[in-house]
This record gives sequence, C-alpha cells and structure tokens, in this order.
Amino acid sequence: MINQLVSKIKEKNAPIVVGLDPMLSYVPEHIQKKAYEEFGETLEGAAQAIWQYNKGIVDACYDLIPAVKPQIAMYEQFGVPGLMAFKKTVDYCKSKGLIVIGDIKRGDIGSTSTAYAVGHLGQVTVGSKTYRGFDEDFVTVNPYLGTDGVKPFVDVCREEKKGIFVLVKTSNPSSGEFQDRIVDERPLYELVGEKVAAWGACAMGEQYSYVGAVVGATYPKMGEILRKLMPKAYILVPGYGAQGGKAEDLIPYFNEDGFGAIVNSSRGIICAYQQEKYASFGQEAYAEASRQAVIDMREDINQAIGK
Amino acid sequence: MINQLVSKIKEKNAPIVVGLDPMLSYVPEHIQKKAYEEFGETLEGAAQAIWQYNKGIVDACYDLIPAVKPQIAMYEQFGVPGLMAFKKTVDYCKSKGLIVIGDIKRGDIGSTSTAYAVGHLGQVTVGSKTYRGFDEDFVTVNPYLGTDGVKPFVDVCREEKKGIFVLVKTSNPSSGEFQDRIVDERPLYELVGEKVAAWGACAMGEQYSYVGAVVGATYPKMGEILRKLMPKAYILVPGYGAQGGKAEDLIPYFNEDGFGAIVNSSRGIICAYQQEKYASFGQEAYAEASRQAVIDMREDINQAIGK
Repeated sequence: MINQLVSKIKEKNAPIVVGLDPMLSYVPEHIQKKAYEEFGETLEGAAQAIWQYNKGIVDACYDLIPAVKPQIAMYEQFGVPGLMAFKKTVDYCKSKGLIVIGDIKRGDIGSTSTAYAVGHLGQVTVGSKTYRGFDEDFVTVNPYLGTDGVKPFVDVCREEKKGIFVLVKTSNPSSGEFQDRIVDERPLYELVGEKVAAWGACAMGEQYSYVGAVVGATYPKMGEILRKLMPKAYILVPGYGAQGGKAEDLIPYFNEDGFGAIVNSSRGIICAYQQEKYASFGQEAYAEASRQAVIDMREDINQAIGK
Repeated sequence: MINQLVSKIKEKNAPIVVGLDPMLSYVPEHIQKKAYEEFGETLEGAAQAIWQYNKGIVDACYDLIPAVKPQIAMYEQFGVPGLMAFKKTVDYCKSKGLIVIGDIKRGDIGSTSTAYAVGHLGQVTVGSKTYRGFDEDFVTVNPYLGTDGVKPFVDVCREEKKGIFVLVKTSNPSSGEFQDRIVDERPLYELVGEKVAAWGACAMGEQYSYVGAVVGATYPKMGEILRKLMPKAYILVPGYGAQGGKAEDLIPYFNEDGFGAIVNSSRGIICAYQQEKYASFGQEAYAEASRQAVIDMREDINQAIGK
C-alpha cells in the first residue's frame, strides 16, 4: 500500500491528503435539511448529513488527490450511526480509487492492539469465515505504550501489505508537554522517531516503509531532524492551513527525491466555502469550493517544494 | 460519578472491576452455536455471541461488583456490529446498576478530543435535539498529546459529573520504553502523574477527583510513588491475575483510607471456566465460574489490603 501511495502521489502530482473530519456546523443547510426530513433530527439524520456532505466533496475532488484521511472521532461522536457513516465513507472513497488513512490514533497493550489492527486493517475470523470490519488502507497509531502496543499493527501490515503512521510529534500547541521532554540529551519525540525507523525496517515497501510517522507542520525544525532520523518513513503532516502551518514550512519534511511526505488539510478544504476566499461559491456549491481549495493547496505546496 | 464509584465500592466491599473483553475463543460453544444459527457465521453472529456471553457474566456477577470495564477494541474488531454489541453491553450494565468504565484509550488534538468526549461521556447536538452516543460513566484517555488533548475530556466530565482515567504507567512489558525514560531526573510517568493531579484539582468530587489514573499492577514500586504524587486520583489498576500482578502487589495503590484504587481483572474472571481451578463448572456454567472467580478475587484483594 505504501508503494501505491507513492505512485498515486506521483500520478496526481499532489503530495496532499484531504481530512474528512465533518462537524455538523460544516455541513451546508440544504444537506442537513434533506437528511433530517428523511431521518429526523436523530443520530441517523446526523450520520446521513455527514455522509452526504463527504460524498459531495469526494465526488468533486477524487481525481485530484491520492488519499483521504477520515478522523474517526468526528463520526464516533454520533455513536453507532456515526460509525456506519465512517464505514460508508471509507468504502466509497476506496471505490473511487482513493487511499484511505483512518485517523484513529489507537494503541493499547499487545492483544488489544491486535484487535484494533484486525478491525481496521486486517481480517477477523468468525467460525469458518473471515470478515473485514472497517478496512482502511493505513491507520494512525499512538506509541505511548511502547513496542508491544505498536508491533501488532506492524504484523498485520506485513500480512495485508497495509501501513501505519505513528504519532511522533503532533501538531497541537501542548504537544511539547511530554513529547519535547529531554531524555538522554534529546527530546522524547526523537526517541519515538528512532523506534519508528526500527519498527519499519522489517516492513519495507520499494523505497519507503509500511511504518510512517505523524509530524505536525507547525514544528518545521523538528520535522527537519525527524526527516533525517527516519529516512524511510513516509511522514503524514497535519497542521497545514487552519492550524497555522505554511507551505514553506513543509520543505524539510520531504526527502531529496521530492517524496517522503504527504500533507493533510481538513477544515481548509472541506470547509472552504465558509472562508472569505471561496465564499462566492455559496453553500450549494460547497464541493466546488473544496475542489478549488485542493487546486490552490496543490499549487501552494508544489511551488514551495519546487515541483 | 466518582462519588458513586466510591460508594458502590464501599457498599459491595469490593474494590474490583470486571473487564468485559470478549474474544470469540472465550465464548462457550453453545452460545456461539446459537448465535450463528440465528445470524450465520457473520459479524452480526459474532456480535450476538459476545453480547450473550457478556450478559451471562453480568447477570451472574452484578450484585458482587461495583463496575465493569468493557475494552472497546474487542468489539471494534467486529466492525459496526461489534460496536453495537459494545453499546448494548454498556446500556445493559447500567440498567443493572453497574458503573461502566469504557476502556477506549482515546486522545487527540483539542477539537477531536472534544468529539471523543462528547461521543463517549457527553451529549451531541443534532438540530434542536441532543443525544448520547455511547454514554459510558468513565473512559480511559491517552496523554501523549498533552494538556490540550486531555482538557476537553475534563471539561465534559465537569459538565456531566463523569470521569476519566489517564494512562500513566501501563501494565504491559514494554511500557517502560517511553514511560520510564528519565526527564529532569525523574521518569516520564511521574510527570504524567503530576499532570493528572493538576488536571484533576479543578474537577473534584467529595474525596476523589473526576480525573483518575491507570497504573499497572505489574509495577508496584512505581505504584507506590504515583499514589503519593496523585493523592486525590482514583487509580484503575490493570494487570492483576492473567498478566501476573499479585494481591500483595496491590497494597501501595490504596490510600490509608482503604480506598483510592480499583483493580481490574478481565480474562481471570470472564474466562474462569477455561482455568483448571474452575474447570469443574464446565462450559454451560461459565457464568457461575466467573461468579466464583469474582468471590475469590474479592477475598484475595481484601485480605491483602486488610479489609
């Protein structure tokens, strides 16, 4: 799957991923109205609204982008109906040829991490049959529990030829509280980065490993160091756009081959129509606004990295 | 809710929680057979099997215990049908008067943590209505992202009078890889423990805070230090029994008032019938085996802590 991700980034000339992180406040009124008419103001109605909203964005943008990254929390907040919308979104994006990165940030002790890995990347056995629960292509993983919390994901990735992105340095303001603390004269995130390189060494694709890393766009100097520490890890970069990361900040996240990083934007794309810059599209044409925002993001980033 | 947890522990004289972490391999054949007859060897069939298995255990044990802790990964591995079984389990346990600790180990950047907190502890707004997605009483939270990943959970806890247990020192073998690293002459888990105390200071119940901690039974010396660092934090202690923690190891996790800790056992209780000690119950009476294992665990722990 990492090979496919690299070749799709090449093909679309777009090292970008659209974060499908729907809040109801993002969903245009006409979509909400229709969903509530059909299902009432219920969890099912909310789930229908976010699914239809996603579908519009995917239909408008899928030819431009290699991948999407649905954030499962935004679906989980609506309980079981929300998770049904998550699954529908994953399946639909795959049917449109997109690679799906499930932003699930799971991580637990060994046997429990195995259950998460099986549910999101692998297959579960029921009697004489096997099934795929959510079936994303990649997921994000929290490393706080150490190797035996991450290894089960790597094992499933090797079986399934899928991948993970391990949280190394997150994009949020307080990420430094623990991640930046100095251990043996180096910040903790460097130790985690080294582990990512080690975990990934035995799960290699052609040029990059099945084991990637999350490093926020908001910390470019740290990104530069981590890029060198984990040369074979693809870096998933959140924090561009709405969170404050700029295109020129992204340069150090890429390798000299021009690959090695994929930049996420969520609100900046899916909510483009709510920004002044794209307001002329209006609510009805929210998906076209998202398409224009993808085109602008692609240009902004490709210009910065000299592509 | 923390006050209710303390009073239920007092009432039942049982500082224990049963981990409802069903694997299909734990579920007796007669339950699997019946579920597959009704739903086929499908995800729905698996979900029915684990739900019926849970129900049997809860019916047999609810009068003895204050709380249960379903591990969501074990449900999530069966996709959406599995998560329906999770919700059924949560609802059923609450209807039997049990406090439910959702072992979800979520944690993300601010707005995303808010979505998790809303989905698991709070209420989500849909148009003019509000709904509760999963509605546990407590959840476990991963602290790797720092204060702004945890704070949204604390805020929802204050509104809802619910609680969280933050991962401080986990019970697994490689938990030390990052958690034990020395920062400013102290291990990282102590820093996290101090933060737990700080986060919890503004969310106090009568004697204990809404913000508790997870500290594994497998590291009693660390438990002793953490107990003193976070005197108002209830400690959820996994790792007793199947993972190797012994009753006498649990003493330092309790405060002098005899409270302050609640000990989890999962496999040791729910799979009791598969152990030599309880094998005479047989598969059909698996729930009675679980009941006996609860009685034995209660005695083992109360004897150790002198109750």
